[in-house]
Amino acid sequence: MNTLAPPGAFAPLQNDTFIRACLRQATDHTPVWLMRQAGRFLPEYRATRAKAGSFMGLATNTDYATEVTLQPLDRFPLDAAILFSDILTVPDAMGLGLSFALGEGPKFAHAVRDEAAVAKLAVPDMEKLRYVFDAVTSIRKALNGRVPLIGFSGSPWTLACYMVEGAGSDDYRLVKTMLYSRPDLMHKILQINADAVALYLNTQIEAGAQAVMIFDSWGGVLADGAFQEFSLAYTERVLAQVKKEHNGVRIPSIVFTKGGGLWLEEMGQLDCDVLGLDWTVNLAKARALVGQKKALQGNLDPNALFASPAQIEAEVVKVLNSFGTPHSGAGTGPTHIFNLGHGISQHTPPDNVAALVQAVHAHSRKLRA
Amino acid sequence: MNTLAPPGAFAPLQNDTFIRACLRQATDHTPVWLMRQAGRFLPEYRATRAKAGSFMGLATNTDYATEVTLQPLDRFPLDAAILFSDILTVPDAMGLGLSFALGEGPKFAHAVRDEAAVAKLAVPDMEKLRYVFDAVTSIRKALNGRVPLIGFSGSPWTLACYMVEGAGSDDYRLVKTMLYSRPDLMHKILQINADAVALYLNTQIEAGAQAVMIFDSWGGVLADGAFQEFSLAYTERVLAQVKKEHNGVRIPSIVFTKGGGLWLEEMGQLDCDVLGLDWTVNLAKARALVGQKKALQGNLDPNALFASPAQIEAEVVKVLNSFGTPHSGAGTGPTHIFNLGHGISQHTPPDNVAALVQAVHAHSRKLRA
Repeated sequence: MNTLAPPGAFAPLQNDTFIRACLRQATDHTPVWLMRQAGRFLPEYRATRAKAGSFMGLATNTDYATEVTLQPLDRFPLDAAILFSDILTVPDAMGLGLSFALGEGPKFAHAVRDEAAVAKLAVPDMEKLRYVFDAVTSIRKALNGRVPLIGFSGSPWTLACYMVEGAGSDDYRLVKTMLYSRPDLMHKILQINADAVALYLNTQIEAGAQAVMIFDSWGGVLADGAFQEFSLAYTERVLAQVKKEHNGVRIPSIVFTKGGGLWLEEMGQLDCDVLGLDWTVNLAKARALVGQKKALQGNLDPNALFASPAQIEAEVVKVLNSFGTPHSGAGTGPTHIFNLGHGISQHTPPDNVAALVQAVHAHSRKLRA
Repeated sequence: MNTLAPPGAFAPLQNDTFIRACLRQATDHTPVWLMRQAGRFLPEYRATRAKAGSFMGLATNTDYATEVTLQPLDRFPLDAAILFSDILTVPDAMGLGLSFALGEGPKFAHAVRDEAAVAKLAVPDMEKLRYVFDAVTSIRKALNGRVPLIGFSGSPWTLACYMVEGAGSDDYRLVKTMLYSRPDLMHKILQINADAVALYLNTQIEAGAQAVMIFDSWGGVLADGAFQEFSLAYTERVLAQVKKEHNGVRIPSIVFTKGGGLWLEEMGQLDCDVLGLDWTVNLAKARALVGQKKALQGNLDPNALFASPAQIEAEVVKVLNSFGTPHSGAGTGPTHIFNLGHGISQHTPPDNVAALVQAVHAHSRKLRA
């Protein structure tokens, strides 16, 4: 890809806490960022969104995408930035026609529900996703080394859910009907998705992403057995193809399966650096199950942010303490990246996020003292 | 309560497979029933529902409630019946004004969101729920000993979710805001709910219910720690008050927490006979975690019923095999009650249910041979 600037031109990283924690190296505080931190809970985001006219108008405009990605960093001392985009850009580039009606979730004009529709699917030309890679390079330049930039994609299974359902779902009936009655078609979709996601993440890395995250938002709706076969196996297929380093620099990878707490031992075998956890998981138990292989990221309930600042602080302390004392000193050891267990709610008062970030930094320094 | 007939007048039980399996006694096949088996997937249910005019018109009419409870038994050789009712009858009796708009979920006219509303809550007079107990007695008589009748209630936490939200929710923001910011109010609601649920279940038992089930449909949305404090503790408070026997006959109790798979060891300590499991749980692992204390109920993904009969049979065999060989011989040991991991979908073809029941009975006999 012909990106906006050669990676060598990027400024050196000033705050590498997040990257070090991903790689299980010691840090003086627990890094914190929030899923969906560039989003509707910020009035400045809503202002830019209004200028852009639509969600995709925002995501496809390099300047707007850069602007909203940096907005939360100007308010809060977060330790990472995450590309502003949507998990469904890849199936959109496959020609399924993504749109966001106001006040509703994403929709595809062309759902994939039969053999003929599956036969038409292919790994898309990355030129169709140029707007994403241009945004990555633009954001990386605008960050100017303040914090690292995380790129991301939906997981093969999560993309397949939307591709087959054509929209969000509360019972996943259509995609699971295909899974149980035409597993051959389901596997075909997932293979294409996995190869597309790997290429998409690698192109983000080439454009300037310093870490990548796979959002398996709907892995947790699968039955035991089906999760391993239809979600985990294809996350593995992505990871097998994703670059572990770029220009001699390690690129950490994060896998987050919402509702995946029951499969932590198996997820501990994935070839990634970090496992993201939702709020149902006990971090001490997770640490014991996953063992010495991965950093852990998570996992405050986003709804805790509707309490008072003092109560938020108490909940933050509970999460930090449940992980326990992170690694300090040389070499590698157990590390924790603080996050919510899911995306931040649009109704969250921004001041409460300030209280959260402050509490994470302050208490996590005490934990190390 | 002055029920329609004294319990002594009920016919003796002809098929006690379900009750024996609840009590971890040997059976010649694995009993099977389906959550929401009396429901919209059956055309005869839809016909009765049309006659009744509304969901509550159906639930509050003894004859209709009896009719629809027995409908699935006339089609399929199920091993248990479950009272046709709704989990929200108790808060309705508390005066919150339950209604079901066509095509939508339940709604309360008076949501409980502040101190004043909480102060007004009390364990309701069971006379207001007389229609439920009359239905229990009527159904028990109509069953005439064919299979046992299961009574049920929502769990204290699940009732509280609806009471605070006022309806279903996809983020539980209002109820969790109360939980995190006013835990004192939340505990007050849960105490009242627990005592009301216990009285409600005991009155169902007096009216003729031969087993009782607590549906903790929304326990799984809670954070680790919050689940134990706000859901599990109040399920325990219910169980501590529920009759273990009636007229000298053991009344088994079942607890089902959807999404509760991460807390199975703690749930294994509950004073109940059976744990219900959703499809995310591996039955072999569950059996190991729960130990020799409980029977297990579950856990096929309801969406598997959209596959072909041969594929359904294969999925049934997987579930039965994942539990392994149940106890046979004298005394007690590990037993399994087959069910779905959640209520059956209204879109399920009835013939596929026939295939499921047939497969459970046939393969589970082979497992014992």
